[in-house]
Amino acid sequence: MIGMKACGIIAEYNPFHNGHAYLLKAARAQSGADALVVVMSGNYVQRGEPAIVDKWHRARTALQHGADLVIELPFIVAGQPADRFAAGALQLLEALGCETLAFGVEKAANDFQTLLAKISSDLVLPQFEVDYTKTYATQWNDFIEAQIGHRIEQPNQLLALSYALANRELKSPLKMLPIERIGVAHDAVQSSDQFASASTIRRLLLSNQLDQAQRFVPYGLNELGQRWMSWSDFWPYLHYFLNVSSPDCLSSIYQMSEGLEYRFWEQNLQSTSFDDFLKRVKSKRYTYSRLRRLALYTLLQTTATEMKLDSAALQPVRVLGFSSIGQAYLHDVRKTIAPQLITRVTAELGKRDGVLGTQVRVDRLIEQVTGVEQNFHQRVLMMT
Amino acid sequence: MIGMKACGIIAEYNPFHNGHAYLLKAARAQSGADALVVVMSGNYVQRGEPAIVDKWHRARTALQHGADLVIELPFIVAGQPADRFAAGALQLLEALGCETLAFGVEKAANDFQTLLAKISSDLVLPQFEVDYTKTYATQWNDFIEAQIGHRIEQPNQLLALSYALANRELKSPLKMLPIERIGVAHDAVQSSDQFASASTIRRLLLSNQLDQAQRFVPYGLNELGQRWMSWSDFWPYLHYFLNVSSPDCLSSIYQMSEGLEYRFWEQNLQSTSFDDFLKRVKSKRYTYSRLRRLALYTLLQTTATEMKLDSAALQPVRVLGFSSIGQAYLHDVRKTIAPQLITRVTAELGKRDGVLGTQVRVDRLIEQVTGVEQNFHQRVLMMT
Repeated sequence: MIGMKACGIIAEYNPFHNGHAYLLKAARAQSGADALVVVMSGNYVQRGEPAIVDKWHRARTALQHGADLVIELPFIVAGQPADRFAAGALQLLEALGCETLAFGVEKAANDFQTLLAKISSDLVLPQFEVDYTKTYATQWNDFIEAQIGHRIEQPNQLLALSYALANRELKSPLKMLPIERIGVAHDAVQSSDQFASASTIRRLLLSNQLDQAQRFVPYGLNELGQRWMSWSDFWPYLHYFLNVSSPDCLSSIYQMSEGLEYRFWEQNLQSTSFDDFLKRVKSKRYTYSRLRRLALYTLLQTTATEMKLDSAALQPVRVLGFSSIGQAYLHDVRKTIAPQLITRVTAELGKRDGVLGTQVRVDRLIEQVTGVEQNFHQRVLMMT
Repeated sequence: MIGMKACGIIAEYNPFHNGHAYLLKAARAQSGADALVVVMSGNYVQRGEPAIVDKWHRARTALQHGADLVIELPFIVAGQPADRFAAGALQLLEALGCETLAFGVEKAANDFQTLLAKISSDLVLPQFEVDYTKTYATQWNDFIEAQIGHRIEQPNQLLALSYALANRELKSPLKMLPIERIGVAHDAVQSSDQFASASTIRRLLLSNQLDQAQRFVPYGLNELGQRWMSWSDFWPYLHYFLNVSSPDCLSSIYQMSEGLEYRFWEQNLQSTSFDDFLKRVKSKRYTYSRLRRLALYTLLQTTATEMKLDSAALQPVRVLGFSSIGQAYLHDVRKTIAPQLITRVTAELGKRDGVLGTQVRVDRLIEQVTGVEQNFHQRVLMMT
């Protein structure tokens, strides 16, 4: 089939739930695309923690419930602040030949469309002064409020805004297709019959309430392996690393600046758990997500050099799995799209510097914690 | 009491046993000194591992069974190769005003005295070429054999040789007092009724044969706290550290050279335990002790700068405990000896670079593993 059209989706599927299945279905219907191409975060997610289950379990559930192609959003994108996360993900979808970007928003309403229009034309982004009394996110929202008359408090809407901003930087911008989320607000405690946010489901899984969580996902929860990862798996290692480090050593970590190395070093000494540590380092200036990501960079000895994003940095692109439609799409576009696509990480590829080397390196901690190989001996998922 | 004389002893007491008690008794009798001053390794020992119990438990047993003053041999000395270990320990004893050095040897016999005489006069030390087929220790012994006609295979005798060599570098060399060890060879499996080597006792403790070990120590083994430390406590942290590192990062570790960073990095990937790792990195060129120390430097992120030994580097000197004789000796010599003596590590002292900062840093891993504070809130042991 020549000339297949693809709709791109940026996801974490942490874990995959009914809301995600709904979005895939709506995207297929509303985009008119032949294939749904998902770029999905690997083993680490944007809020600076491990995904609750590994990338293979998550990719499989997505392929079983609507995705045609699952591409790994590598750590150097998936672990970034929102603006770089959006930029890397959009670059990847553009490179993969997607025409449309479908994304969920809390309200796919007029004001968002107005904002999108504004963004695609004349909006000049501000450079914020360092302000130690407000987080970056708050300053952002102050700016948005000045543009559209009210604040955007919903996290998915903020993320969608980042997508729109990143999209206008592309050579061939994608068509933006906002799809209204159904179910509940992102962090609501109350849940409808079938829909709950991923964070609600994670809370249920981590507190071992599988019966409660089951109705929110379109598969048996036992398919996820029932080995939930969280920062509590990593805390002993971060605590050790900070215990034997010095503030000087920490200053070479990606985004460790403005004296945060001293704060991290000092507060670690008294901390008894990761939550305790995070509360101790929190200040008005930084959000919890920023600090969690910084803790993750520290744990993974992440440097600015390896996190530098440019078009070359994202190659080779890793295919985690595909349906028969996804396979046809790959076959169709392999010759026309730019990036090198791989379905297997060889030892040789894994040793190189760059996106795959970093991925293999950060995944080793997941392998140490779970005992499950993440790269070399994993086969691409074929749901054909 | 003015003009007290002191005999120095270099020890690890890992753990303190009947042989150590015997040596203290013999040293007191044969040296004619008023006070026995012990410099004892802190929480890490020279073979590159944690002491089986912490420095406080070990200092206490020494003070209860013959030592008058226990000074901490800091990590920057205690964790060094034999020649630097000896140099640092001798410098410390000289600075503490000791006239004599008592030490145990397997045979306090004529050939050793001959060697000592030779060492104190005309022996020129060789510079070994890099030889990848022999360990440094083997090359050393080849040299010794050429000097005295036979090899010195016993570890304590080799150590004593290092003491003698370090001693002749001092401004005021100490009188060497070799004392024949009683009981058994260092690593013998068979043990006499009361005497066994520290390594034999550690093996018994680590395999939970306390009844077997009890007769070899002059105190109830429960006084040691029964929480035995070994590399198995550290392996998860070393494994993690190497998992997320790169060979480039490792090259900044103290004594990581000659491509060992690649060997360490590569072999870690497949290793399932510390013993497994050590066997994988072993080659003809390096002894297990050298490799264990290197693993410890890696675990503790040790740099060449902080391990540099000079007379200033050893100050302030830390008193772990004293008997009434030890207290009198301290009172006597405080004004005449050079080093700053401290009995308490304040937060201020612990933050500084240098010997105490390093000590506090490396001890934090012990604190993480055992849950027992090692520095700030520990009081000097007074057996008065």
